[in-house]
Amino acid sequence: MENFQFYSPTEFLFGKDTELQCGAMIKKYGGTKVLIHYGSGSVVRSGLLARVEQSLKETHLPYVSLGGVEPNPKDTKVYEGIELCRKENVDFILSVGGGSCIDSSKAISIGVPYDGDFWDFYAKKTSITTALPIGTILTIAAAGSEGSGSSVVTKEEGKLKRDAGSDLIRPKFSILNPMLTCTLPAYQTGCGATDIMAHVFERYFTNTAEVEITDRLCEAILLTMIKETPRVIADPDNYEARANIMWAGTVAHNDIVGVGRSQDWNSHGIEHELSGLYDCAHGAGLAVVMPAWMEFVLDHNVMRFAQMATRVFGISMDFEHPKATARKGIQAFRRFLSSIGMPINFAELGAKEEDIPLLVEKHGLGDGRTGGFVALSADDVAQILTLAAKATAN
Amino acid sequence: MENFQFYSPTEFLFGKDTELQCGAMIKKYGGTKVLIHYGSGSVVRSGLLARVEQSLKETHLPYVSLGGVEPNPKDTKVYEGIELCRKENVDFILSVGGGSCIDSSKAISIGVPYDGDFWDFYAKKTSITTALPIGTILTIAAAGSEGSGSSVVTKEEGKLKRDAGSDLIRPKFSILNPMLTCTLPAYQTGCGATDIMAHVFERYFTNTAEVEITDRLCEAILLTMIKETPRVIADPDNYEARANIMWAGTVAHNDIVGVGRSQDWNSHGIEHELSGLYDCAHGAGLAVVMPAWMEFVLDHNVMRFAQMATRVFGISMDFEHPKATARKGIQAFRRFLSSIGMPINFAELGAKEEDIPLLVEKHGLGDGRTGGFVALSADDVAQILTLAAKATAN
Repeated sequence: MENFQFYSPTEFLFGKDTELQCGAMIKKYGGTKVLIHYGSGSVVRSGLLARVEQSLKETHLPYVSLGGVEPNPKDTKVYEGIELCRKENVDFILSVGGGSCIDSSKAISIGVPYDGDFWDFYAKKTSITTALPIGTILTIAAAGSEGSGSSVVTKEEGKLKRDAGSDLIRPKFSILNPMLTCTLPAYQTGCGATDIMAHVFERYFTNTAEVEITDRLCEAILLTMIKETPRVIADPDNYEARANIMWAGTVAHNDIVGVGRSQDWNSHGIEHELSGLYDCAHGAGLAVVMPAWMEFVLDHNVMRFAQMATRVFGISMDFEHPKATARKGIQAFRRFLSSIGMPINFAELGAKEEDIPLLVEKHGLGDGRTGGFVALSADDVAQILTLAAKATAN
Repeated sequence: MENFQFYSPTEFLFGKDTELQCGAMIKKYGGTKVLIHYGSGSVVRSGLLARVEQSLKETHLPYVSLGGVEPNPKDTKVYEGIELCRKENVDFILSVGGGSCIDSSKAISIGVPYDGDFWDFYAKKTSITTALPIGTILTIAAAGSEGSGSSVVTKEEGKLKRDAGSDLIRPKFSILNPMLTCTLPAYQTGCGATDIMAHVFERYFTNTAEVEITDRLCEAILLTMIKETPRVIADPDNYEARANIMWAGTVAHNDIVGVGRSQDWNSHGIEHELSGLYDCAHGAGLAVVMPAWMEFVLDHNVMRFAQMATRVFGISMDFEHPKATARKGIQAFRRFLSSIGMPINFAELGAKEEDIPLLVEKHGLGDGRTGGFVALSADDVAQILTLAAKATAN
């Protein structure tokens, strides 16, 4: 096990009606003027925004609102938020939505007190030293941004999707009410579940030996997702299954299952080019990329994939042919994704095989290699995308 | 799943040589005058105390020291610590030791700013509203106190073992260097491992339905302990196994595996009377009590015990006779405890069957019942202790 720091100071309130406590929580963490930042109209139509506003009024907290955050949140909305916060002397951001909304809020929170262009943090030109405090009310179990210190934003010009991170942008509190996720369409639910599983797999495939505790914790989340996701696809109002998925999504990404081990993140990196180019859902892109990545890197550590196959997908170990077991695990993952309505190849995603050179170029490896479980060259990425383009569930 | 709050703001530094950062961490969390609180002479003999003092000197932090905390920490040492902190204007407590030392530090931290007798918090006469900040350097993986908001102290007069809890006594930081645990005798290592597993089982046996995510996370820790504990008993210097156990011990008790579900804690409650009366190690007492408790409550939910047997102890499910499977699981747990050197009956613990009426009386249920997985009467406790008294590994 490698040395590590683990710090997850976010206070989580979980369960029915917990959003009604948002005003009290903002006061607890020192907010006096609030930006309510949200995404789609569903937050308005469902009555959630009205309940949030009511809670702020009851706790005498003045606020301004900014909606319209899109999936794969854009820099343009961030600039709008920064300007509004400065003009209105906002000192607390309440993010009401999913990962895109939270990531946009995080970008605003570091942009407001910064003299330069907030994109500097995402272009890695400077590092985060201060941020406005933020709180979240989560409406989709997926990104894990409610418990993480990272943010991903897309620059419209050039469609560059980049990340920034710091403990300073971890939410002060996150409110998780599984009821709020019951109205999600099946496709978005499936995309969220895929993202959660991907966050675990990015940590699971490690070159660090002897990390049984985090291996087992990773498997715990994956087993839960395999049990609960089909239940919510079949029965969207199943509160218990929604609740299990929602907490799994947070634990999957606050790094408690990833500490002390090298991690991968190449599937996320490659996927970012897909959603950057086609504006597809991040989870859908991951469903296409991740099993292909697994096939490509399988030989690097066959026994680790065999462990996944047996412990996570319940496949009997073939002791004479571990690689056959490993392959069955990867294919079981792909079949699972297909069963929950996810695309598993380019055609189903709406991507084009002829775009692969462009996708590789945007990924920007040049003559270099990425880090991770297996360090990938541009040619490797092209091969992974080619595998992804043609994949089938059988 | 039940509604819950989860809050674990402690910053963890994990790995080799991390204790050298203690001075910097105390400064980070605002300390200017430190009490170094420690237990046995091994902290001195191993050179750990000298390294800690060196770190404080290098960061120009003045300190006073108070050693001599005993296992099952006593109120008398707490009074001594409170007096010393007040006299020396201490504003930060650094706890160097195991759970007993940390619990004693927590008691001092709430006693210093309190006008009355600190025992009021443990006698539940008042609740915690303020505390000095504390940090820890952990020397044994066991109690989980390094990541918890609870403390257990024994009042010498009457040998009353009682607990107090609040988010305010969660450590600001905890330093976990598995190397520091390599010199522990096998018996203490086994006691610590038993305590860790007990913390999980107290959460695992729940009356809350549909809590797959926390079930699976509980099982992840138990599976890790079953793999790693025999390795450190056989090879005390196995850093990797020590590291897995140490992180498992923290995750087992910061409640991330217990949120959203009713919990039990009756085995801990009953055990406190054993270690209160005989001054035996807490883990050793748990090894005697917990399997007996399992046998006594088995009929309350046979399928939950069958789940434990199959998922944790790898026993094949007997679908015609689930109870037989469940019983095999309990007996496998007892055999495991015996294999790592734990006592599994009164004779091996040094307890006396004729003391059972006294133990029951001290437990103080009177005509009432406890809460938990099964609400227990005084007679139930007597029956559990009788089962515990006579247990065998076969």
